[in-house]
Amino acid sequence: MKLNSMEMLYADKLKDLYSAEQQIIEALPKMAEAAAAKELKQGFQKHLKQSQAQAKRIEKIFKGLGEKPDGKTCEAMKGLIKEGQEIIKMKGDPVVKDAALIGAAQAIEHYEIAGYGTARSIAAQLGFGDVADILQETLDEEWEMNEQLNRLALGDASTAGINEEAMMAEA
Amino acid sequence: MKLNSMEMLYADKLKDLYSAEQQIIEALPKMAEAAAAKELKQGFQKHLKQSQAQAKRIEKIFKGLGEKPDGKTCEAMKGLIKEGQEIIKMKGDPVVKDAALIGAAQAIEHYEIAGYGTARSIAAQLGFGDVADILQETLDEEWEMNEQLNRLALGDASTAGINEEAMMAEA
Repeated sequence: MKLNSMEMLYADKLKDLYSAEQQIIEALPKMAEAAAAKELKQGFQKHLKQSQAQAKRIEKIFKGLGEKPDGKTCEAMKGLIKEGQEIIKMKGDPVVKDAALIGAAQAIEHYEIAGYGTARSIAAQLGFGDVADILQETLDEEWEMNEQLNRLALGDASTAGINEEAMMAEA
Repeated sequence: MKLNSMEMLYADKLKDLYSAEQQIIEALPKMAEAAAAKELKQGFQKHLKQSQAQAKRIEKIFKGLGEKPDGKTCEAMKGLIKEGQEIIKMKGDPVVKDAALIGAAQAIEHYEIAGYGTARSIAAQLGFGDVADILQETLDEEWEMNEQLNRLALGDASTAGINEEAMMAEA
């Protein structure tokens, strides 16, 4: 792997994100199973479907390049998912564990936000306006998921958040 | 390690961020050395000093708890830094490599943004207003660093960005 041109960086970044999505698709059912709150479980399940669609978008982009997006392992996502798995394995109060799972999921979202932001900017720079639009769509979905996780943790005008509920847990 | 209460999650999150900062402090001099553009080099050097101050803030928070922030390894940061190291080792055009380094650094910033955001919210929930303010200060610095990296990549009214310069590289 070399970085001789922006085209090469572009392909490398998208392969990294493709590997990240594959790992997320494998991890989300376990996170959904571990979640105690119904809304959190549903949030993870919804994001699983979104992630599957996002991976397909990358496959489509590579089809246009006459290539496949395989062959790279996203090392960052390996670490991020390991942190989620650690939480799943920990003993503790189910609501506190939900609060911890939300934190782990937001770190995953932020990795994707950074990655898709970079890929979108490079696609636009290379003159691939259609691809930039597709990547922007994914980027918007990641921000939206992050916002939803925020609302679940902190609550809103109508409901208390998981963080507040978790305060009832006694050490 | 158990997650029986929000106090435990709070300590766990801060230990994770402390380990992340330690790893970042070790990685940034290598990223600064590898950067070709003077502004990027200086950006990494400035963020090294910031990260050292941010780690000290966590030490101070733990002093207040009568504890030390050691003993946890942030697995996510291990992966994120590995991605930066891969770029440093790659052959290629120096400006394209700078663009890649900016992407890796933004992923690191986003991890910290997610982590400090969670820690700040939990501190506020626990009634530790002073600590929440300190963590907000760090959070603001991480967003600012991310913005600076954006400007370096994409340019502004007065200068072309690194991404545009990198378009001159020929595969």
